[in-house]
This record gives sequence, structure tokens and C-alpha cells, in this order.
Amino acid sequence: MSESVGVSLLGGPLQLRRVLVRDAARSREGVTASALTANIDDVLGDAETQIVVELMGGEQPARDHIVRALASGRHVVTANKEVMAKSGAELLELASQHGVRLLYEASVGGGIPVVRPLARDLLANEVTAITAIINGTTNFMLTAMEQRDADYADALAEAQRLGYAEPDPINDVEGIDAAYKLVVLCGLAFQVKLSPEDVVRQGITTLSARDFRYAGELGYTIKLLASGRLVDGEIVASVQPTLMRHDEPLAKVGGVLNAVQVEGDLVGRVLFQGPGAGPAPTASAVLADVIDVARDLVAGRSAPEAIAYRSLRVRPPSDQESRYYIRMTGANRPGVLAKVAGVLGEHEINIASVIQFGIDESAPTEEFVITTYLAQRGRLEVALAEIRMFGEVVEVSNVLRMAS
Amino acid sequence: MSESVGVSLLGGPLQLRRVLVRDAARSREGVTASALTANIDDVLGDAETQIVVELMGGEQPARDHIVRALASGRHVVTANKEVMAKSGAELLELASQHGVRLLYEASVGGGIPVVRPLARDLLANEVTAITAIINGTTNFMLTAMEQRDADYADALAEAQRLGYAEPDPINDVEGIDAAYKLVVLCGLAFQVKLSPEDVVRQGITTLSARDFRYAGELGYTIKLLASGRLVDGEIVASVQPTLMRHDEPLAKVGGVLNAVQVEGDLVGRVLFQGPGAGPAPTASAVLADVIDVARDLVAGRSAPEAIAYRSLRVRPPSDQESRYYIRMTGANRPGVLAKVAGVLGEHEINIASVIQFGIDESAPTEEFVITTYLAQRGRLEVALAEIRMFGEVVEVSNVLRMAS
Repeated sequence: MSESVGVSLLGGPLQLRRVLVRDAARSREGVTASALTANIDDVLGDAETQIVVELMGGEQPARDHIVRALASGRHVVTANKEVMAKSGAELLELASQHGVRLLYEASVGGGIPVVRPLARDLLANEVTAITAIINGTTNFMLTAMEQRDADYADALAEAQRLGYAEPDPINDVEGIDAAYKLVVLCGLAFQVKLSPEDVVRQGITTLSARDFRYAGELGYTIKLLASGRLVDGEIVASVQPTLMRHDEPLAKVGGVLNAVQVEGDLVGRVLFQGPGAGPAPTASAVLADVIDVARDLVAGRSAPEAIAYRSLRVRPPSDQESRYYIRMTGANRPGVLAKVAGVLGEHEINIASVIQFGIDESAPTEEFVITTYLAQRGRLEVALAEIRMFGEVVEVSNVLRMAS
Repeated sequence: MSESVGVSLLGGPLQLRRVLVRDAARSREGVTASALTANIDDVLGDAETQIVVELMGGEQPARDHIVRALASGRHVVTANKEVMAKSGAELLELASQHGVRLLYEASVGGGIPVVRPLARDLLANEVTAITAIINGTTNFMLTAMEQRDADYADALAEAQRLGYAEPDPINDVEGIDAAYKLVVLCGLAFQVKLSPEDVVRQGITTLSARDFRYAGELGYTIKLLASGRLVDGEIVASVQPTLMRHDEPLAKVGGVLNAVQVEGDLVGRVLFQGPGAGPAPTASAVLADVIDVARDLVAGRSAPEAIAYRSLRVRPPSDQESRYYIRMTGANRPGVLAKVAGVLGEHEINIASVIQFGIDESAPTEEFVITTYLAQRGRLEVALAEIRMFGEVVEVSNVLRMAS
């Protein structure tokens, strides 16, 4: 951010007042030393600071800083998905009480405009579904697993070597990061207060190159999909590795790209796609919010937007319906498959296809994939618990959602 | 549009006052008869009307109505690409003078949010390129030509039968509609005042199924691309059938879908995709603008955004550089290709590849495709004029831009 942004764009100058850092003694390019401080009170004590930009990440102390900034009448621009997912509704209410704005375009999808389009451009729609690839690290890994036949560990090592994955990758690979972002998107799309615990979450750690080969033969790829849907007046929210048909727009989103698909009653399906992370895309989103607030300040506007939340029930995970892909290994003898199919049938789970790959008649065990028609998660889990008890079933290796 | 939109969304009720129609005697579902009028003065004479929505299309009398509405202190929401392309800068200035807003999200890309994202969310970027598929009719036709090996006339007939193309399709197939939209996008992306005449325009009427087969063998598809670029401080704007590599995101946009790709210095490449036309998507965009203005009215905000245009030179068509695909037919005898290549070389046009398709040694003529490296349009035209003079060259059938 340059210290003063074009006056013509804003109608007045924008000045960088203070930068909160861990070590104020270390110099930063483009920032005068006197602007650096390690003390939040220097920021909030500066009477001329009207906008506070929070880019520290993590829940604390970021959340406290945002609370103090809003309560002291400062507009806040943040890129913090964790704080917005866990406390977004309260903080927006606090901003409203103090007549200031809390903007968070950078919290989801990096520089891709998606928060404001949901908050403004698609507002006339009843949004029925959000389907998104909103974690670049895992999308990079899944793309590598598919395209280079890599296994999970290899894909993770490559992502770490390239700096896409952190040494401890849990937030990415377990879908925690994506769940935070999904909560933010659902809040905007459905006007509901969700918490990260409302999101059914499944990581990508059990996926193998074989799953991609099997999915590919069935005409699918596998994506870590964040999905929020309005089903019979209930919210269904999940972050799960999901089989998607190759011709779906989201199936074509590869590498570290992010994409958010919104379905609305008027607009149909719109897709927003781009780089979902990185310093420059984040700066694009943060600066857009800063400019928006600054224009309001110059024009003497201040009233924040009204927030009206709906009370919608979150559907329990066991009631969620989906098609499923089940990979399992069983003894290579007649009747095993019939026994498995029988149990699924007893629990009202209809089989769409059964496929055995790489048949070797002399092997003691064989691997096969069962795909189901729409099935209730709860019923499937009961059935699979029974199936796992069979001596003939060596392993139920993977249970994955199928988008259609 | 329902007569009153949710109070919670706006902070106050929104009421439909008047609907200007050709025949006020004919009843319309959802509109009380007393609201219908065939006289614009009934609309502008109603003191309680604060927002005028213009959806008549075409330049006149729409432009006059917009001028009168703005001059009388009404906010205007329009879907009119022709008026915005031809008079957008003046009308926005007029709105600014009267302290009202002129919003036009629906003028480009139907319900896909693209006008506001450019005007707001990507504002911190120096936009370097806009590349867009913004005419659904022609994209449908080109998709049909590629996928079903259809020729131009067949594709047009199918589009007309399905209601995608009008009986007189000139605005679509000659790229006039796309050029209007590109002018609107360039105005936002580059803050320049362009006119439709600044756009180099080439229609799709010369394309044949053969061009798609040949392009396909080279690894390309053909799209009617609207392209605005900032090159060495100059604007280069064109609507041309363009060869795109299959792995480009825009190459995958099929049928009546629209997509707009924006390249910015911070954000990189972001893509907006969705249905580009139709009553419901248009309503989505129009209502978003109406709600935006209504919220301002309820909150007592009114100051329109400042507009600051840059003076950038438009690069003349003859100076524009591109790679080219040239399909021609010549006599089937030795030396013809050498002669053609010689002329291109004299004009500093480097050949990337020469391909003959469907070789029949006994035919009196043969068809071949030449692709070039980056070449100046002006030089290419001079060279082709010379080549057309050769007795051995029967026809230069098609000259198409290549995106890369």
C-alpha cells in the first residue's frame, strides 16, 4: 500500500498512519520508521486514524484488536477468515452499534470479488447453493494427485516444497480453513449465523492416487468442495472431498486457483474464479475495502448497512443426503459382494454401480468400488459399521461424497 | 419485481409507482392497471418517484428518457448497453451534476456481477486486460459449429429456432452488441471514454465448420472475443473471432454462457462466468442496482461517486499486433506456398506453421492454413493484398486473430 492513494479516486488523500508489527525496530520497505509500532495502543490512541486494517491472522489477539477498533469508532477492514467465521455476526452488530463499517472481502477467495457480490450484486436472489473450491493448497495437491498419479504424501511434500502448504498442514488438509470461509459465504448467501461446528468436515488425508484413477474411469474428478445449500428450508453445509463430473465448471479449476459458484433463483449459476491467496491478490481485496470506506468518509456518508439474519435450522450430518463412492477391499471369493450389497439394501441404500479394478484371480483379496444413489449419511454409516464386522471385508478404505 | 421488497433488506419499503409501456390498456401480471402508462411524462411527473428503471433498449427514445430522468433529480438504473456505450460518460457526468446515481450492472453480462466488481472490488488494480465472451448468441453458434461440425448458416438457423438469435441477427453476428459491452467494460477497467468506433470489429459470418476442424488440429478453439488491453499506455480494443488454446479458461465457456476475464497488476487473472442474458438474470442485476440506490435513499446518503477519466490514446487498427491464422486456397502445384511465404517475409511477417489438410494430389487446388508469429495488422493487410493478386491464389478465405 503506498502512503497516499490517488486523490482523484477518492476525492481526498489517504494516509498510512501506523503499522502494528512484532518488531518495530526492523525497517520495512515503503514504510517510514516512525509509523511502525509494536503496541496496539499506538494505533488506537491516534485520533486521526479512521480505518484500521487487520492482517495478523489467527483468532487472538486479532479479534480483541478488531473489537477495540470498532468500539472506538474506527472502521475496520480485515482479511481474517477465522475471526469472521467464529465471531462475524457479533462483530458486524458491534460495528453497526458504533456507526462504523466492518469489511472483509479478503477473508474468502483472496482477490476474487465474492463477498461484495454476495452482499450487494446478487442480493435480489434467493440463493439456493454455494459450491466452492476455497483452499488453494488442497486443490493444488488434488490436481497433482490426479495429473501425476501422486499419492497423498508425495503431493503434500511437493506443496510444502513450493511453499503452498505449511510445515503443519492440518488447517488446510483437514478442511478447517475451507470451513471458516464457507461459514463466511453462507452468512452472506443465506443470511444465517453459522459456526464452524455446523459444517460437516472431511479432510483429504485418506485419498490416494487410486481414488483418482477409479473416479476417472467413472467420469469424475475429486475436489475438496465447500458446499452450502438451502434444502427444504434447512441449511446443509459441508467441506468434503467430492467426486464431480469432468464437465462441471468447478471440475476444471486446477492448481492453486479458487472458484466460488453461486446458484440463485434469478441469476442461475454464476462462477467467480481466480487466485485465492497471495500477498498481491489479498492487497487487491483489502485496498478495495479501504477505498470503499475512504470514499464514504470523503463524501460524509457513514451509515453501515442493515443486517437481518434469518433463523434457519442446520440439518444434522446424519440426515444429509448424497450419492456416495465407497472403496473397499474384501476376500476374493464368491458371495462377498452379494453380502455387502444385501446389507446396503437393508438400510435403503441403492447401489448405482459396482466396479472391480485390475482383476487378479489368484490374489487373496480384491478391491472394488461401490457407488450409491442418494443415501442418508446416517443410514450409510450404520450399514458400513455392519459391513466392517464381516470377516470377508478387509477394509472400507474411503467413503466419498459424489456431487451428482 | 414485486411491488414492495423486503423492508428488512432496505430499512424501508420500496414501491412500484409507474410502468411505461407501449399499450397501457393491456394488463400485466403483478402490476396494477393504474400503474401502467404509455406516457413518459406520467413517470417523470410523479413527484414521489425517486428511481427510474430503463429497460426499453435501443438508443432512442431511451437516451432522452434517461437524460430527462437524471435532469429531474431521479436516480436511474438501466440495462441499456447501446446508450451506455455511446453516451455513458456524458450521462454519468449529468448524473453527478444533479447529485444522483446512474447504475448499469445489467448492461453487460446479464446477471453476472461485473460492472460493480470493476467499479469497486478491483479498483486498487491497474487493469491491464479485459478478455470476454459477452454475446451469448454467437457463443452458442460457435459452440454448435465446433461440437456438431455445423456450418455458419446451420448454426444461425438453430439459434433462431431456439430464440437465441433474432430474425435479423446483424447486431450479434457482426459483433456490434459485443462492441457496445466492451466499451462499457473498458470505460470501467481503464477509466477511458471510448466510443463503439474505437473497437476493431470482425463478425463471425465468414467462419465455417472447416475453420473449427483446422483450429482443433492445431490445439485451438474459436471464440468471438471482446478484448480490451492497455499496451504501452495505449488502449487496444477489438471484437474478433479469435483462436484460443483449449486449456484457456475462456475456451471452456460454451453455449449461451458469458464470461469476463480481468487481468490486474495485484489480483492476477479473475474470471466471472454465468448466463449473460434472459429476463431473470437481467432482473437480478437491475434489482441489485435498485436496492443499492434504495438503501442510500433510506440511509440519507446521496453523493454519487466521483468519476476521473484518463486520456489514453486508442491504438489504430493497423498498428495492432497479433498472431494470425490465415486460411487460403491455391493452385495445387509446386512453388505456390514458397511464393506466398516470400511475400509474407518481405513484410516482416514470420510464419509459425503451414498446414495442408486433406491432401488430394489430383485436385486442381488445395487448401492450406498459415499461422504467423506476432504481426502488425497493417503489414499483414498489405501482404495479403499482394498475395490476392497472384493467379495461383484462388482465395484468401479467412484471416483470424490468435490469442497466443
